[in-house]
Amino acid sequence: MKNPPALEQLVESLRCLPGVGPKSAQRMAYHLLQRDRKGANGLAIALDNALQVVAHCRSCNTFSEQPICPLCAADSRDQSLLCVVEMPTDLMMMENTQAYEGLYFVLLGRLSPLDGVGPKEIHLDKLIKRAQDGIVQEVILATNYTVEGDATAHYISELLRSRGIKTSRIARGMPMGGEIEYVDSGTLAQAMMERRSVK
Amino acid sequence: MKNPPALEQLVESLRCLPGVGPKSAQRMAYHLLQRDRKGANGLAIALDNALQVVAHCRSCNTFSEQPICPLCAADSRDQSLLCVVEMPTDLMMMENTQAYEGLYFVLLGRLSPLDGVGPKEIHLDKLIKRAQDGIVQEVILATNYTVEGDATAHYISELLRSRGIKTSRIARGMPMGGEIEYVDSGTLAQAMMERRSVK
Repeated sequence: MKNPPALEQLVESLRCLPGVGPKSAQRMAYHLLQRDRKGANGLAIALDNALQVVAHCRSCNTFSEQPICPLCAADSRDQSLLCVVEMPTDLMMMENTQAYEGLYFVLLGRLSPLDGVGPKEIHLDKLIKRAQDGIVQEVILATNYTVEGDATAHYISELLRSRGIKTSRIARGMPMGGEIEYVDSGTLAQAMMERRSVK
Repeated sequence: MKNPPALEQLVESLRCLPGVGPKSAQRMAYHLLQRDRKGANGLAIALDNALQVVAHCRSCNTFSEQPICPLCAADSRDQSLLCVVEMPTDLMMMENTQAYEGLYFVLLGRLSPLDGVGPKEIHLDKLIKRAQDGIVQEVILATNYTVEGDATAHYISELLRSRGIKTSRIARGMPMGGEIEYVDSGTLAQAMMERRSVK
């Protein structure tokens, strides 16, 4: 027993969404066709529209409808600080903290030789050019503290320091409200090693 | 910090999918735009196409591209048996067992007065007409064994029996390979009450 071809095609197409397997794709397709045809139509339109108008900012690589995103174009930002993140989501998270006034550079990935992601794929040429523009004074590496994110930060810091550019890495340590009893031992060990003197 | 409008619209539109909240919608949108634009385009096309060509079978209500679905149109099926299920998925599951040769009627829902789903919304007029066509000899109620599915089966069986139509309900009991130690007590109690004599 099989679905009609157009329905089967929809189920198959829904599987391009991350985290959607055959069962949930079928559930989604049935839901859309039976209960939310308006939503399905809206989704088709939104997909078309987003594919047409959303591209990457030429300056920082984040998603943008303009060639240069509003954040890069803003005069109010501190042009001397450049924060390097892996993904547009990371940029958003950082912005939501309201603790950073500088500009960003989004790698759109992390070094991962096994997956064929090398320095070129994460736009390092562009980053180096940008960091050497004479305006940027410090590059802050805010890649994830995973093995790959850390290796990426290390690689970038080597590249930049050999060119005389000041680099820093966001701090590691106990999370806000964290209890020593429940924090993992790796984090606790780092928090101990990177302890700061109390003034 | 907000996404560009077209991206925000896509995130919002993805939330029409069942089980997709704000976080996963954003993850999906980012994934599509950054890593799978081809898939996103395919999804938009599949949605459009399915909305245009997939409708409900006039006879059994399941999804079909033809006015009468291939299953209802097949001569090989036993026309005297009519199996009532809640959803097209249930029909598919039943077909996959290869244990049933008759026809189906899909309610496209279950009685749920609190949600505004009454006898009309689950097409009971059509079901009664169908059951009284002189060809159908037995109506098998295969709604879920949930409170609502069971109430629906009860309601339908009352309607049909008052019209002299033979009705039956799929059996309840231990699942295949089920161990008494691990089965829930409701199921076990039912299996005990509905025990069959060994011949």
